[in-house]
Amino acid sequence: MNAEILSIGTELLLGRTTNTDARDVALALSELGINVYWQSVVGDNPARITECVYRARNRADLIVTTGGLGPTCDDLTKEILAKCFDKELVLDTKAEASIRSYFAERRQPFTENNLRQAMLPALSTALPNDCGTAPGCVFRSGNVTVAMLPGPPRELNTMLRNYLVPYLRTLSSETIRVHNVRMFGIGESAMETRLRDLMDGSNPTVAPYCHEGECMVRLAAKGGSEAECEALMAPVLEEIELRMGDLIYGVDAPSLGHRVLELLDERDMSLAAAESCTGGMLSMTLTEIPGASLHFRGGTVVYTEDAKTRLLGIDPEFIAEHGVVSADVARRMAKRVRKALDADLGIGITGWAGPDGEDVGLVYVALAVRGQCFLRRLQLGSTTPRGKIRTRAVGNALDMVRRYLSGLDV
Amino acid sequence: MNAEILSIGTELLLGRTTNTDARDVALALSELGINVYWQSVVGDNPARITECVYRARNRADLIVTTGGLGPTCDDLTKEILAKCFDKELVLDTKAEASIRSYFAERRQPFTENNLRQAMLPALSTALPNDCGTAPGCVFRSGNVTVAMLPGPPRELNTMLRNYLVPYLRTLSSETIRVHNVRMFGIGESAMETRLRDLMDGSNPTVAPYCHEGECMVRLAAKGGSEAECEALMAPVLEEIELRMGDLIYGVDAPSLGHRVLELLDERDMSLAAAESCTGGMLSMTLTEIPGASLHFRGGTVVYTEDAKTRLLGIDPEFIAEHGVVSADVARRMAKRVRKALDADLGIGITGWAGPDGEDVGLVYVALAVRGQCFLRRLQLGSTTPRGKIRTRAVGNALDMVRRYLSGLDV
Repeated sequence: MNAEILSIGTELLLGRTTNTDARDVALALSELGINVYWQSVVGDNPARITECVYRARNRADLIVTTGGLGPTCDDLTKEILAKCFDKELVLDTKAEASIRSYFAERRQPFTENNLRQAMLPALSTALPNDCGTAPGCVFRSGNVTVAMLPGPPRELNTMLRNYLVPYLRTLSSETIRVHNVRMFGIGESAMETRLRDLMDGSNPTVAPYCHEGECMVRLAAKGGSEAECEALMAPVLEEIELRMGDLIYGVDAPSLGHRVLELLDERDMSLAAAESCTGGMLSMTLTEIPGASLHFRGGTVVYTEDAKTRLLGIDPEFIAEHGVVSADVARRMAKRVRKALDADLGIGITGWAGPDGEDVGLVYVALAVRGQCFLRRLQLGSTTPRGKIRTRAVGNALDMVRRYLSGLDV
Repeated sequence: MNAEILSIGTELLLGRTTNTDARDVALALSELGINVYWQSVVGDNPARITECVYRARNRADLIVTTGGLGPTCDDLTKEILAKCFDKELVLDTKAEASIRSYFAERRQPFTENNLRQAMLPALSTALPNDCGTAPGCVFRSGNVTVAMLPGPPRELNTMLRNYLVPYLRTLSSETIRVHNVRMFGIGESAMETRLRDLMDGSNPTVAPYCHEGECMVRLAAKGGSEAECEALMAPVLEEIELRMGDLIYGVDAPSLGHRVLELLDERDMSLAAAESCTGGMLSMTLTEIPGASLHFRGGTVVYTEDAKTRLLGIDPEFIAEHGVVSADVARRMAKRVRKALDADLGIGITGWAGPDGEDVGLVYVALAVRGQCFLRRLQLGSTTPRGKIRTRAVGNALDMVRRYLSGLDV
């Protein structure tokens, strides 16, 4: 089954709204094994919407629209789609009752323009709106299935999950399964060079994704059952693991931070962090994850030299002697924060994040454990933006913890 | 001028990536007074990309593509666009040098596939990539202007702002001026209700934008000169300022964090932060801004009760008596961190960010100054996602500092 997503709304064309709806629909369809080859966005303009619909029905057998189902005169989706498929709009009495009770429940005055929302193309199935007033609907015309979803993301997602996905599942017999192989410590092109030949297959497909200094390979297989999909992926997954080795930190792990917390949990160990140039980014990255407090003790943001002295008791003379961005200061930060918070592991990060100054991009990351201290000296590039230097430094700190806890060379 | 945005990338069709690029380009174009009537998304598929380009050049005089400029075999944009417009791809030696030096600086091995990125359509103008390796480019063919931007959002935005927008400005004789009025402490619909009548004008246009708990109104005027644009906006700006009062923290300020650092600089004062539920997000938000170390001393991430005792010396009995999420603990955190770092102002944040537990969404933010302590009790909603609770807490902390330093009620 091939689908096309058509997002309707002038606010999208003006850049006022991010099109999360298209993403959410696309993800749901891909998980159903439905191919999406096209997405289009048009404004609240009848001629352009019509043009899009005509084109879509010639190249797709499922059209999903988002937006334009509300009560105002801008909301044209149902009228236009009905016309395109030669259908009348008829009042759906169940939808009407549900809209009226929505208003009654909230003691809001019911205005007649709200009735427009209960008008659906003839012979369509209403998709209830559990979070708002405008129902969606789905109908078939020849070989084409047309589904209309509301624009507000919460309404769309609830309707999609509760009503449209179950409906679409009845139309298809195919299953799709996906695995994400996540890595740290290799660039996109180097990764691709190593895996190039695996990327030519079509089932499973193997595709590289990179962002924020991390690399990922996505495998996706289609088949008649989950087991069949897994069987198709197993040899490819094994080959990727063989080639990439310990650069891989997890298959289907949500992030490196998650993996680190998982490892800390397995080893029943705790972590503390002293951050200079990253200014709290490492702490924030870990505390984004629910339950982080079980193994992440906290830390200090010692953004100035004075703060390194006051919060970690590092002698100003020691800093002056070695330089504030130095291996020695990073090590001392790691050791002191570990001790201060009575943690098993301590991280110290000091570096120049720029944009001004000499040595921008030079960062030292230290990992202190009982009786030992590991160090990475990173040269992240003098023109690299501040945010990226910080992200890379945090990634390296997490990777050092991951490798240490996994028994690998740090 | 009418533009069409063409986003290229299979990951968009699979719903793995949100198309923020299309939004950012749409917003930049709308600020230049360029109409966007269509956006399309296609995968890394030559036939479908070609079909989109042919269609776009018949209905738009500016085509902006996003994505597909990288070094891998999936990255087809330049090849296909060159073919569609009958152009050769030629090696841009400046782009090549810049890519080679990018790798040399980072001491990463240079692989030959990276050279593909330096191949540009003949007679095009390279758009430098200040944040990565793949340059963009822009060329004209007949009446159509074609611009290609990279997919990674940071690379795209930097290139857009630094190179494409200035280039597009030279194509038009019209001047556009924009002002952003930024507010904290009011919701979108309340703001819109107060400013509704001002939003009907067409020059300047007045449009609301809201995200991450902040509101913004954007004014845009078109005219023959900057002075003419400013004169058109002045009375509207004045009216907005009159109606919104001290909810406004800045006109054209990049962010609330910037405004806070600016105010600290004006008053020559310093700030320190003790964060529990926000886990370093406040520190990170401030240290994202270059020069933050002049006035932001640093702080502690006291994510556990034990950390509050160890790093801030707060008595465990005091915590047990008042509760770890309480006004008293927030106040004590603020006072202690202020003192520990010898700062003029201290922030303390403690709350329940969820997703589990009672009282999710309850956050206390305290601001300690010499001899005084201010407090906000926030009830951010028990079903509000963790990230949003943290962002709102940080926003409120910054707003308290902003209001205190501006001599307003905190």
